[in-house]
Amino acid sequence: MSVTAPAGFSAAGIAAGGAGRPDLALVVNHGPTLAAAGQFTGNRVKAAPVHWSQQVLRGGRVSAVLLDAACANSCTGPLGFQDTHAAVERAARALGHNAAEIAVAATGPMGVRPAMDRLLPGVDHAAEQLSEFGGERAARAIMTSDTQPKTAAVRGAGWTVGGMAKGSAPLAPGLATLLVVLTTDADLPATELDRALRAATRVTFDRIDADGVMSTNDTVLLLASGAAGTTPEPAEFAAAVESVCADLARQLVRDVEGATKEVLVEVVHAASEADALAVGRAVAGNAQVKRAVRAEVADWPGVLAAVGATGAAFEPHRLAVAVNGVWVCRDGAPAAAVAEVDLRFREVTLTVDLAAGDRSAALRTTDLTAAPAARAR
Amino acid sequence: MSVTAPAGFSAAGIAAGGAGRPDLALVVNHGPTLAAAGQFTGNRVKAAPVHWSQQVLRGGRVSAVLLDAACANSCTGPLGFQDTHAAVERAARALGHNAAEIAVAATGPMGVRPAMDRLLPGVDHAAEQLSEFGGERAARAIMTSDTQPKTAAVRGAGWTVGGMAKGSAPLAPGLATLLVVLTTDADLPATELDRALRAATRVTFDRIDADGVMSTNDTVLLLASGAAGTTPEPAEFAAAVESVCADLARQLVRDVEGATKEVLVEVVHAASEADALAVGRAVAGNAQVKRAVRAEVADWPGVLAAVGATGAAFEPHRLAVAVNGVWVCRDGAPAAAVAEVDLRFREVTLTVDLAAGDRSAALRTTDLTAAPAARAR
Repeated sequence: MSVTAPAGFSAAGIAAGGAGRPDLALVVNHGPTLAAAGQFTGNRVKAAPVHWSQQVLRGGRVSAVLLDAACANSCTGPLGFQDTHAAVERAARALGHNAAEIAVAATGPMGVRPAMDRLLPGVDHAAEQLSEFGGERAARAIMTSDTQPKTAAVRGAGWTVGGMAKGSAPLAPGLATLLVVLTTDADLPATELDRALRAATRVTFDRIDADGVMSTNDTVLLLASGAAGTTPEPAEFAAAVESVCADLARQLVRDVEGATKEVLVEVVHAASEADALAVGRAVAGNAQVKRAVRAEVADWPGVLAAVGATGAAFEPHRLAVAVNGVWVCRDGAPAAAVAEVDLRFREVTLTVDLAAGDRSAALRTTDLTAAPAARAR
Repeated sequence: MSVTAPAGFSAAGIAAGGAGRPDLALVVNHGPTLAAAGQFTGNRVKAAPVHWSQQVLRGGRVSAVLLDAACANSCTGPLGFQDTHAAVERAARALGHNAAEIAVAATGPMGVRPAMDRLLPGVDHAAEQLSEFGGERAARAIMTSDTQPKTAAVRGAGWTVGGMAKGSAPLAPGLATLLVVLTTDADLPATELDRALRAATRVTFDRIDADGVMSTNDTVLLLASGAAGTTPEPAEFAAAVESVCADLARQLVRDVEGATKEVLVEVVHAASEADALAVGRAVAGNAQVKRAVRAEVADWPGVLAAVGATGAAFEPHRLAVAVNGVWVCRDGAPAAAVAEVDLRFREVTLTVDLAAGDRSAALRTTDLTAAPAARAR
């Protein structure tokens, strides 16, 4: 499991301050190849580590990833970028690598610069602790509000894809950052990694409800070592990457503090996938819908109102809604009795039939709304 | 104050069930003119009363408005529309009016039809109770989660604009419906009323944060009796309508159960008003920003992250943010110390400078996030 499941990688997770919980992770690709691909936040306000890593990824090669869970280094201006640069140079020196091939990711408080007297010695310490069995420790070191480390791996014919993620957060109040590092020992060029990663994130991490808070730090990286000496079929490799991403995404949804329900929102008979997704996101993110799910009430009118606020193609009088498979709304009006729906279990499925085409999409969310006001007091 | 402040109107507010709290209001225009304008929800799933009233308003004449606060009659299909029609016919009979000139508005539970054995006798009872002093009672009868009735009036030179509103709700969890009836004794054609109403709602009711939940029932009506026999200057009349709407909108923001802060979000130096509004809505609706305001923390990076998720024109490294007038962020980086900001008072102002033009916009919201999960338990 984790990033050291494939051959050719080592990792470490340490407490950069020397005490306290682990907050700094390092993942090193020992090659022979260093091909890599990355996906980053769509937020136009990007943290310094994102700016740095986007530059690195343009070269298609990554020899190491440094992950700081103690400071997001976001909204810190040119000085914050210098801090990121200094941390990378320190890692390059410690590892004997080219700084231009070292990616960085970070999560934690925004608007403050990292404490360099903690971070720089931490980088040295992490480099000393690198181990081919260090994947689990790295996964623990990137946790913030997460209650559990999140790791996954899939084995192909002579090659492996492994990965770790952090972020109870993309769905929960607070730190909304998603950090993911995927590794493989397959021998593939950066273009192929990029194709597989894009396809996988589109149907996994992009389909968990983010409560409308888009982080400045979201980073998803895929590194290939080529150590297995095997080049898988593109489709087979893409399926493995998607499977690891789906596993991690599901773990993210499960690890949302305070959630009592896991909700699958399915949209069927849409005119386009974009419509299906827009409707799915509107329903998954709707406060009234989430509150009803939490209260174990089949509030299909709330679902219709969420659908009605989108620009998707549909006729209001043809909409249908099922809750846990019971069609409580047909033709935009009441159908089966709401009392027939059993909402006592943790898993809830909301199905919206747009009666407008043959496309569909599914998203995962929870019953937790953006920020329970009571918690902030 | 309220809808009976101008001459030519009577109103009633009664408990349609005969007992319990008032839940049915009737506002009657005694003329001599019956010109009217209306603005309705942008939700494509519209309640039966909205469908009915949109038809009525096409004629530009309204002799009476029936408001039911016990049942939204939304997502009820053709049968729900028949119920609305029957209630209107009953009101037409009771008042001796033309049914095609009677508007309807409603709020309450969705997905269920109104209890006609309550509603129809209620219509008769309301017609019997009509009084030229009934404005306050009508304003009380349309309350749902509101803790106070909301009324306002402005006097011009020989004419008056009055109004009532309900909806702690556009900003609060739960029933998100905004119902507003404005009245005037000025003598103006429907086209002039329509122009004034559109201009007023655009900068008042459309600029309070609706937490992403768009009601299927939102209705804002403006009725003119002409009883004052005066035709005001268009600009003067428009200013009075805007003033009444602004007063009611402010009352809506104040009456949000559980809110501890009233937040004014100002966006300045935007390239366009649309950009300013988009940024304002993104900030006002952002869960992280609201939570920080509630906790009395000047979380300007959270504001930047909200801005960064929009498509507005700006350069991240030129953004500035002030909290209660203290510029805690300049050039996208820390400026004045966050500790200099005093957030102990109820009123909070967040200012975003996009450094991209000369347009601006302001919105009002509260520190209350969509749906405190704890409340639903």
